[in-house]
Amino acid sequence: MDDIRIIVAGARGKMGSEAVRLIERTEHFKLVGVVDRTFDGKLFNDVSDYNGEPVRVYTDPEACLENCPADVWIDLTVPKAGFLHAKTALAHGVRPVVGTTGFTDAELEELKAVSAQKGIGCIIAPNFAIGAVLMMKFAQMAAKYFPDVEIIELHHDRKKDAPSGTSVKTAQMISEARRKKTQGHPDEKETLQGARGADFEGMHIHSVRLPGLVAHQEVLFGGDGQLLTIRHDSMDRASFMSGVKVAVETVMNLNTFVYGLENILD
Amino acid sequence: MDDIRIIVAGARGKMGSEAVRLIERTEHFKLVGVVDRTFDGKLFNDVSDYNGEPVRVYTDPEACLENCPADVWIDLTVPKAGFLHAKTALAHGVRPVVGTTGFTDAELEELKAVSAQKGIGCIIAPNFAIGAVLMMKFAQMAAKYFPDVEIIELHHDRKKDAPSGTSVKTAQMISEARRKKTQGHPDEKETLQGARGADFEGMHIHSVRLPGLVAHQEVLFGGDGQLLTIRHDSMDRASFMSGVKVAVETVMNLNTFVYGLENILD
Amino acid sequence: MDDIRIIVAGARGKMGSEAVRLIERTEHFKLVGVVDRTFDGKLFNDVSDYNGEPVRVYTDPEACLENCPADVWIDLTVPKAGFLHAKTALAHGVRPVVGTTGFTDAELEELKAVSAQKGIGCIIAPNFAIGAVLMMKFAQMAAKYFPDVEIIELHHDRKKDAPSGTSVKTAQMISEARRKKTQGHPDEKETLQGARGADFEGMHIHSVRLPGLVAHQEVLFGGDGQLLTIRHDSMDRASFMSGVKVAVETVMNLNTFVYGLENILD
Amino acid sequence: MDDIRIIVAGARGKMGSEAVRLIERTEHFKLVGVVDRTFDGKLFNDVSDYNGEPVRVYTDPEACLENCPADVWIDLTVPKAGFLHAKTALAHGVRPVVGTTGFTDAELEELKAVSAQKGIGCIIAPNFAIGAVLMMKFAQMAAKYFPDVEIIELHHDRKKDAPSGTSVKTAQMISEARRKKTQGHPDEKETLQGARGADFEGMHIHSVRLPGLVAHQEVLFGGDGQLLTIRHDSMDRASFMSGVKVAVETVMNLNTFVYGLENILD
Repeated sequence: MDDIRIIVAGARGKMGSEAVRLIERTEHFKLVGVVDRTFDGKLFNDVSDYNGEPVRVYTDPEACLENCPADVWIDLTVPKAGFLHAKTALAHGVRPVVGTTGFTDAELEELKAVSAQKGIGCIIAPNFAIGAVLMMKFAQMAAKYFPDVEIIELHHDRKKDAPSGTSVKTAQMISEARRKKTQGHPDEKETLQGARGADFEGMHIHSVRLPGLVAHQEVLFGGDGQLLTIRHDSMDRASFMSGVKVAVETVMNLNTFVYGLENILD
Repeated sequence: MDDIRIIVAGARGKMGSEAVRLIERTEHFKLVGVVDRTFDGKLFNDVSDYNGEPVRVYTDPEACLENCPADVWIDLTVPKAGFLHAKTALAHGVRPVVGTTGFTDAELEELKAVSAQKGIGCIIAPNFAIGAVLMMKFAQMAAKYFPDVEIIELHHDRKKDAPSGTSVKTAQMISEARRKKTQGHPDEKETLQGARGADFEGMHIHSVRLPGLVAHQEVLFGGDGQLLTIRHDSMDRASFMSGVKVAVETVMNLNTFVYGLENILD
Repeated sequence: MDDIRIIVAGARGKMGSEAVRLIERTEHFKLVGVVDRTFDGKLFNDVSDYNGEPVRVYTDPEACLENCPADVWIDLTVPKAGFLHAKTALAHGVRPVVGTTGFTDAELEELKAVSAQKGIGCIIAPNFAIGAVLMMKFAQMAAKYFPDVEIIELHHDRKKDAPSGTSVKTAQMISEARRKKTQGHPDEKETLQGARGADFEGMHIHSVRLPGLVAHQEVLFGGDGQLLTIRHDSMDRASFMSGVKVAVETVMNLNTFVYGLENILD
Repeated sequence: MDDIRIIVAGARGKMGSEAVRLIERTEHFKLVGVVDRTFDGKLFNDVSDYNGEPVRVYTDPEACLENCPADVWIDLTVPKAGFLHAKTALAHGVRPVVGTTGFTDAELEELKAVSAQKGIGCIIAPNFAIGAVLMMKFAQMAAKYFPDVEIIELHHDRKKDAPSGTSVKTAQMISEARRKKTQGHPDEKETLQGARGADFEGMHIHSVRLPGLVAHQEVLFGGDGQLLTIRHDSMDRASFMSGVKVAVETVMNLNTFVYGLENILD
């Protein structure tokens, strides 16, 4: 197998530097260029922890694409930049793998059109943690047979919002698959308000916040005499990188646009 | 060791019949009499599944105590009866082990006084599941070092009230030990109401209800980089019997009144 | 929807009596006949807890099929009988749903042929607990992305064999999907023999036996910075009935033979 | 309350630098000196991430003790150094809190004698993770009532030895409390060798190794119809610091030698 030549945009950010590490330790991945907001023209080796074959930093995406022949563009920047980067990469025949969130529907439609026209793959994924994506996918599948479900999500106590985005996304995916049902005893009553958690279309979501926790979620399905539980524990940022790896490998064999990692896992 | 001779009141109820089974399979326990609301004078063997040495049913506690020399009176009836039975047993020098709940403070005081005057043990316990009692005890001990705690209790969906009595009892015991603390991020906000559960003096309690569940509780303590979890799963009624066994053995060596199984476990 | 008319073979056994209960409380299911080893000609109502519309017991399957027009034959007997019953049911145009295990390959082939020839469905399933079947299916799917996996199965301490059949079946299904891998540190060493559990093609299986447990299994997948866990808890026999229900409903729309519940779940 | 003045030995190591961070963010703790193998005479601020009030590095413990009046000596070095440091600190009336392991019995005896003679506290603890220490303590307490116990310890797959030191320590502590018992079915047999884990005086220990895991342990107690589980998850090194904090506060009120954090927790 030939090496997959990769440009990383946002390579000096938290996620981007993990992506560089991933490339370094994956045998058939090869870093060929870096796009960043500063250090134009410098060696990436001189402005980061990167120790591999020398690659240059570009502040201009076009310049990078022209000087560094590449197969895949990994983008871990911000929404506005992410969209422009992906369009530019596609124009150069380079396949985007974008972890940036916050695209508008119009932007997604445009990328889809350009991808189709060029006949090359493009993957946009708001969540690259394969374990979390599988948890949501399995939960949706299980909900068809177990309409009774509750979600417990557990995060560190510096998190302000409850429930978590992932738990709401999970509940939405379950809602698409299960027959509507209001759970619990019909005469259920809370002697302490909030005990039964948040209600999402009859499902209950519970948010636990404690120091020591990182990011965890449990989906519990109950049926006659049995319980099925699907749990994901995310210990650190590295958890995202297995999804980036799968996306890079998959985008090489795609000729269409895909939104969401769940749609490239089978 | 001599056999411990036992009278069971409420022997044909759900709990009482488990108590009889416990006595049958415990080598040094011996059933000597049964008190029940009906079947006065019948053989207990003829009106139940009991297959042991023949014992007689009495509707009158006094009559039972006079005809059946006993060491311990196990009471699994109702509060009103439970109080009278315990008093009567003490009067006859027989040590009560009572699993009935709902005693008034005055009644408890009276039993305490009689127990002291007679110089024999008397144990009243609202919960005989040793595992649950240890969970509460350990939670109280841990709270001193881990002031950040959340409780998740999980029950079958035929349960009407939330949160469970055991979870509130646990929170109360923790409150006695931990320094006051409002947990979670100070700017915490719920985007779906109830997500953060019920608030009990700054602690959060979450109630899960699903078919397939029986009676479960998890107490989570979070600290810097670590989590301590204490969990109890009660699968069936038999879980109460280990506590009854310990109580019967302990009451023989007591000469005072004890309320709560936690106070005889060390 | 018309009622599905059902004959139950083995209706007085542990599983069979659960199947009868399932039929009684499912609106569009109707018990029309019972096959059992004794009580030929008696009313099933008189020889069991069944309280529904009167149905008769037959010791001869042919006689039952001739006298009780039916759509589905639920078989919860023993292998030898199960095979003959399924063949006889198919011959009468009645669709078998068989929970008996231990069929030979030749028997399965024969049922497959008869099912195809008759053009009606036939489902043989060694495990009807949907939760357990989904756990195995999800584990197989996850193994493609997480080659590092360990299985912990937990059962009551009256179980003699370790590891459990379900855990070995799970490991086999995972083996079909994951790339071969010997897990753990290459220089791993056990200072107490057996600590790392049983080895199944590089995967480790651990068997826990404790009183209080029923039948539980956890499949843990580890990856960079994350963990995905799939757990099934089976609390009692009723857990099998949801699978029987799905099978009865599915077999009505099948015109082929299916082995294994996992192949009718999607 | 007066500030507690603290010297840290090994302040530039992994644990030592966490200890410095702990002192920085604890209001009544004050770093007054640092002992390290190099950088004698330098400002600690210049050779580390430390940003607090300037303190100096000493390679000679005596010099440090003479120039920096202190209350407590935190030692996170190596056994040989740890012993000499503790002795020297005691000689200067400074209370040692030592996280180093590997002391000989003779060394422990000597420290005990010096501590008694000086009438000041000295704490040596092989494990400062309070959660882990409480887990072991609770497990020992529970074993008295639940003689059936299994231990599951889970670590990252770079760990070579199995079972973990903590799991063996836990089993030893349980052994002191429970009545001897060989667990599982008397006719138990392994169809795959090792499935039932390691045997420690009749208890079973299971070691799980997966990437993504950090350091976790579960102690499961089974009884009639119930299960009690005590679990500790250690996510990162910071988990040790809560124990150091308690030890520093406690050693100020001790006038004896204590070995093991469990003996200062109540």
